[in-house]
Amino acid sequence: MKILLVGGQGTIGKKIKNRLAAENEVITAGRNSGDIKADMTDPKAVEKMFEKVGKLDAVIVTAGSAPAKPLKDISYDDFMKGVQYKMMGQIHVAMTATKYLNKGGSVTLTSGILAEDPIPHGTVLSTVNSAVNGFVIGAYGDFLKLGYRLNVVSPPLVADSAPALARYFPGHTPAPMSHVVDCYIKSLKTLITGQVIKVGVN
Amino acid sequence: MKILLVGGQGTIGKKIKNRLAAENEVITAGRNSGDIKADMTDPKAVEKMFEKVGKLDAVIVTAGSAPAKPLKDISYDDFMKGVQYKMMGQIHVAMTATKYLNKGGSVTLTSGILAEDPIPHGTVLSTVNSAVNGFVIGAYGDFLKLGYRLNVVSPPLVADSAPALARYFPGHTPAPMSHVVDCYIKSLKTLITGQVIKVGVN
Repeated sequence: MKILLVGGQGTIGKKIKNRLAAENEVITAGRNSGDIKADMTDPKAVEKMFEKVGKLDAVIVTAGSAPAKPLKDISYDDFMKGVQYKMMGQIHVAMTATKYLNKGGSVTLTSGILAEDPIPHGTVLSTVNSAVNGFVIGAYGDFLKLGYRLNVVSPPLVADSAPALARYFPGHTPAPMSHVVDCYIKSLKTLITGQVIKVGVN
Repeated sequence: MKILLVGGQGTIGKKIKNRLAAENEVITAGRNSGDIKADMTDPKAVEKMFEKVGKLDAVIVTAGSAPAKPLKDISYDDFMKGVQYKMMGQIHVAMTATKYLNKGGSVTLTSGILAEDPIPHGTVLSTVNSAVNGFVIGAYGDFLKLGYRLNVVSPPLVADSAPALARYFPGHTPAPMSHVVDCYIKSLKTLITGQVIKVGVN
């Protein structure tokens, strides 16, 4: 398979690349690193990224951040940063992918546990993660009609982020990286579609 | 109670107003009509709306639209219209309300069944409805710390919209308007918070 992995240098992305690289052609993209440099917040940069890659079999997105602050410190513009990057960035990649995927192709996005399990400072992420889940639920029928599948993996706190982030996730059990990667492989290699794939921790 | 009802002239809003008007001071707001004219997509207009209303006990938002189109016809800008109005409009009203609510106050937003139950042409609404649900899940803890509650009502196809919209919602049973209004009353008058309140149809 020829796979575009947006966020391929990130905590989760590099583990996915390790799993897939031996048996697939994996092209990584990222804002500052990767085979292709592309800022996902810029719709034109997303178009150019796909022009460079050409026809492909699958897209996986593990990129996307959002401001983490208490609600009282979040401005409208802060909120819009999360919207533009983790939400609209991923949505625009998925929509643009429909012009480049081969028959049977798939798109796998990334949301996160805060959509359903909130933490202090996590309001923007709860919002944009839920939005990405909602996009997949809303759009998978259109993907189906084109012969494509669309899913989203919703990771919890992951093991490789735990040293830096565990203090913001009290009571959350970090998921082993291999379990997280399994969920992306499930989306890529089975025939499921329209799913919010939750990562188990044991 | 002094209640600001944003969208008070809409299909659902006017039924809520009817139910509440006898025993409460209800101030309606809307883009083109109501006691206060305010465009929810404009953050400054939202601030001005609250300045005019002053301190209050509850905010209910039933306003917010989004483009309904097949995915292939949705541009990035179309998507952003739904984001700015139904999603960020409501979120900004809720965040701004925290500066004006009296102790024990509440905010009730509106999402919709497409967050979980998709229809053709509904991708933008599935996305922004989910985002509003996610905002409530993410932010209710911050509201709690301030002594406020935050919920969202997720209506299905409603009876008064059925003549115009039922053909877009095949197999959906329209909800009686009184059931829909009940859900807003539940959010307003009980002590629940952080809830996505789903409207039953019978």
